[in-house]
Amino acid sequence: MNYKIRALRERLKSLNLEGMIVSNPINIKYLTNIDPEIQGILLITRKENIYITYTMYIEDVNRTLTIDDEIIVADVRDISKEEAENFFVFCENIGFEESYVTYEQYKKLKQRYRINNMVETEGIIEKQRMIKDEEEIENIKKACEITDNCFDYLLTFIKEGMTEKQVALEIEMFFKTHGAEGVSFDPIVASGPNSSIPHWKPGERKIQMADPILIDMGCKYNGYCSDMTRTIFMGCILEEIKPVYDLVLKNQEYVLDEIRNNYNIKTISRSVEDSFKFNNYALIHGLGHGVGLEIHEMPNVNIKNESFLKANMVITDEPGIYLPGKYGIRIEDTVLVNKNDCIALTKSNKGYVVI
Amino acid sequence: MNYKIRALRERLKSLNLEGMIVSNPINIKYLTNIDPEIQGILLITRKENIYITYTMYIEDVNRTLTIDDEIIVADVRDISKEEAENFFVFCENIGFEESYVTYEQYKKLKQRYRINNMVETEGIIEKQRMIKDEEEIENIKKACEITDNCFDYLLTFIKEGMTEKQVALEIEMFFKTHGAEGVSFDPIVASGPNSSIPHWKPGERKIQMADPILIDMGCKYNGYCSDMTRTIFMGCILEEIKPVYDLVLKNQEYVLDEIRNNYNIKTISRSVEDSFKFNNYALIHGLGHGVGLEIHEMPNVNIKNESFLKANMVITDEPGIYLPGKYGIRIEDTVLVNKNDCIALTKSNKGYVVI
Repeated sequence: MNYKIRALRERLKSLNLEGMIVSNPINIKYLTNIDPEIQGILLITRKENIYITYTMYIEDVNRTLTIDDEIIVADVRDISKEEAENFFVFCENIGFEESYVTYEQYKKLKQRYRINNMVETEGIIEKQRMIKDEEEIENIKKACEITDNCFDYLLTFIKEGMTEKQVALEIEMFFKTHGAEGVSFDPIVASGPNSSIPHWKPGERKIQMADPILIDMGCKYNGYCSDMTRTIFMGCILEEIKPVYDLVLKNQEYVLDEIRNNYNIKTISRSVEDSFKFNNYALIHGLGHGVGLEIHEMPNVNIKNESFLKANMVITDEPGIYLPGKYGIRIEDTVLVNKNDCIALTKSNKGYVVI
Repeated sequence: MNYKIRALRERLKSLNLEGMIVSNPINIKYLTNIDPEIQGILLITRKENIYITYTMYIEDVNRTLTIDDEIIVADVRDISKEEAENFFVFCENIGFEESYVTYEQYKKLKQRYRINNMVETEGIIEKQRMIKDEEEIENIKKACEITDNCFDYLLTFIKEGMTEKQVALEIEMFFKTHGAEGVSFDPIVASGPNSSIPHWKPGERKIQMADPILIDMGCKYNGYCSDMTRTIFMGCILEEIKPVYDLVLKNQEYVLDEIRNNYNIKTISRSVEDSFKFNNYALIHGLGHGVGLEIHEMPNVNIKNESFLKANMVITDEPGIYLPGKYGIRIEDTVLVNKNDCIALTKSNKGYVVI
């Protein structure tokens, strides 16, 4: 059995669960490598792992799975009512994904598989996904590398008078034509005063002389995401912006110095908040988030999270300062947590970049 | 109050529901025009319509809503526990979207709004969405027009030796630069034997002489989708393909002749199945589906659906024949149902197109 499913089974046992129904395609991809676009359901029964899907996907699924996975693939058409009711026979507690499964699906699953007690699993697989293995890290590294290349390209591409939308479209094109599957989220290209809105949607505004241009982008490689933000400048940097830029960068680099195994998430986040407050600014969004098969996954990196960083987590470090109607500065790297330090996997220039 | 919410309220009344919690952002867009990317929830209470969202969205939402909507916008931060519990006070039965809301959300909603009986509404809004109004039809028409323009462009763009992926990317680019918000689904570009797989994902295969090229694509305009398939040919058409093409086209056009108000969906679908069977082929997927804010919405157009077409529904008509390992032919239009006939809103050439 592959080690990810084995680890899940051990965890289920310790929670007194005799099995689990995995419905979330991202969690299925994590456990089996089956493409998230394929519709199917993974049953972790007492003795077996059974993936149930539609006829048209069977061939594709069989190509993806290896013997080591120990997963039986079944066509939904071939499973009788009786067989379905037997998968969890004599079981009391079966886990399910309460934050993914709809109320309607919950009722249908409970009935179809005749389950006595469907138990909420509180992100059991999402928590397991926080610690990446070597292969996952390699995929994220590759996505980060393509993102760095895109940034280099943008420095030659962006010109005064271009619209934010044009730049965003070019980012998408670059990713799709340079080895990535596509974007990991819709790129943010926020110019001039638009940069003061953290989640700006690129629009028709034309980039002007002396504009800050906040670019937040990432791509997917083998299903794994990257996430990077840089704030660059058209023609020159207004003097008033420099101290704000310096403060954001100082904090972003301070966090990189702190991140390592067993460091407390709350403490790190608090120190950035305090530094901003001391300078009469505020950190209005979280300091970061986990990155992996999803662009936002566990852990949340903010002052509400009392837990500790662990080696082989991949998180973002993205402090930002936003002055409504004027400008915003955000600098973000995707970061791999190590035992005694961390590595920024996105490596683009963080000094003043004027194009 | 806008007529869509008024109609929903009447329907709720007839179902003995004293209110409803609308969570699905597509249904909220339909009822209020609020962008589906905005996170919020719409409460239809006995006396009021209340949209609850986060601080950062309030301004945007207020710009979207009109006085006619009669919707109160509230910041989630400003709503106390007591206020939340009062929205549905003295109510017994409150509807919710059981096919959208997760089990976890269901429990939270029930608790937060202190609801006695959360009642499944079985797609009450999705059913209302089947009948389009003038403005909705105009948006779909526009999306179809852009799709036709894209098809014309592709006839000049596609060359022997190009990969399927290159063509798919060009489709995305065309839509984004010609007035659409983007694609309504990932385009299918299936060349040669790949065309025999109904949901082929464009890959690295290079288009070759005598290939059939199945192109299934659509875009979004003001949130509304288009959907069109054409199968064209590189250089020449193999003689063996022509009778299959003719049979698909004959059926596709037969269906266009049949579609109108009060015609039975099952009967129309059955006649295509029968025609294919008579010629020793099979219709292996549904004949079509509703199109609107979503690319696939109600009604399903297949032999299982016993209901009747109604004027101002918009559906697809997309018969196809697939010969595994050899080739596939599908021809699809987006179609507006009228009282006594229908109009194909996608108008690209359906004859033999050789490029």
